[in-house]
Amino acid sequence: MRPRIYLLGDSITEESFTEGGWGATLANHFCRMVDVVLRGYSGYNTRWALKVLEKVFPEAPPPQGDGGAPVAAVTVFFGANDATLPDRCSGFQHVPLNEYKHNLHSIVSFFKKLWPKAIVLLITPPPIDEVARLQYPYTDNPQGLPERTNEAAGEYAKACTAVAAECGVPVIDLWTKMQQCPDWKKEYLSDGLHLTKKGNQVVFDEVVAKLRDEGVSVESMTAELPLIADINPNDPLKAFQ
Amino acid sequence: MRPRIYLLGDSITEESFTEGGWGATLANHFCRMVDVVLRGYSGYNTRWALKVLEKVFPEAPPPQGDGGAPVAAVTVFFGANDATLPDRCSGFQHVPLNEYKHNLHSIVSFFKKLWPKAIVLLITPPPIDEVARLQYPYTDNPQGLPERTNEAAGEYAKACTAVAAECGVPVIDLWTKMQQCPDWKKEYLSDGLHLTKKGNQVVFDEVVAKLRDEGVSVESMTAELPLIADINPNDPLKAFQ
Repeated sequence: MRPRIYLLGDSITEESFTEGGWGATLANHFCRMVDVVLRGYSGYNTRWALKVLEKVFPEAPPPQGDGGAPVAAVTVFFGANDATLPDRCSGFQHVPLNEYKHNLHSIVSFFKKLWPKAIVLLITPPPIDEVARLQYPYTDNPQGLPERTNEAAGEYAKACTAVAAECGVPVIDLWTKMQQCPDWKKEYLSDGLHLTKKGNQVVFDEVVAKLRDEGVSVESMTAELPLIADINPNDPLKAFQ
Repeated sequence: MRPRIYLLGDSITEESFTEGGWGATLANHFCRMVDVVLRGYSGYNTRWALKVLEKVFPEAPPPQGDGGAPVAAVTVFFGANDATLPDRCSGFQHVPLNEYKHNLHSIVSFFKKLWPKAIVLLITPPPIDEVARLQYPYTDNPQGLPERTNEAAGEYAKACTAVAAECGVPVIDLWTKMQQCPDWKKEYLSDGLHLTKKGNQVVFDEVVAKLRDEGVSVESMTAELPLIADINPNDPLKAFQ
């Protein structure tokens, strides 16, 4: 059975199959090798994710759950909502920094127990463009102050990379990576938080590189069923014997 | 468990998760409701598909296979390769018209037995732009003649719609639908056979419409887990009790 890569996260994951999205691009990249399975939940933080984890990923029959298809990897991409400021207009999504770290630990442990051989790949929240956040509000904002700041997102990103180190799992520090581009606010963010096509491309490139580092790549896997290039035009059915 | 929609077909299916592809757009459309599972095999015809069907879709434990996730639908999108002309440069992919019909019947029967409640949606081959096919050859073509013609594709499309009627399953007559646009060659085809973004959009729109006719739509399904809009900001955890 074809291995799976699960994508777990918030809206940046849920929207990853829109045009040019990193999830769809990943599915295309691993075409005929891996099933990329979308488990994105807009607005969710790690606290809510923990509440639903056993429902979304029920313990399943051997060898590795869900009918036996092995799980190659799961991306865990939370923090953008945890990092909302508690006293601003989206404060109900806020999770304190220490709890965020604790929750990420619990999520990693959950997957390590469920799928001991799977790669658990953490992704930090992206940087925040505060001016754009005021231009694209999601809700009433009588204070007129951004509900997220880049500084807060950076603290959650640091916490996320720390958890990865503590757990011995790979991590993509998206917050740092994106800000290496001088024009990151315009190039990578569509509303100060969500990703443009180029922003999606950054996530895709980073995920592919990290998975390759951990031994999962198109070079290390075999395409399902004979490729057209490997079928002998003089005796096509031989490939299917 | 989340229902699945399988996409079975040739390169037009295999490539359906490229940017703007109909498969990825379908996955995004049914986000949090359905898992869209890609089973496209470039170059394949119905003869080869029949050889691998039991391998790709093994009989699985109840209720409906593959770990228990129900299957809402499967798209069956073959014919573009069957319709290659037998005496031209891609002739080894050719399947005679009568065998194509017989094979499609067998594929429909296979799925009806495997998943009695699933919608089996046939899709005809698209129309062919013969001039473009000479401009974008896949292989040596010493004859200098197109390996596919629009007329032949039309015969296979008619056969496909006939099989759908005989089996009582829905069908998308893509060959006819696309040619209703006067500029179909440029608008919908990138190389005289494969689809542009607009061509992918036609397939997506048609698939969504046919599935809706058969009772499968975002309106008839429920999103997995509480939506952010349904979470009470004053008591978020209540939604997860």
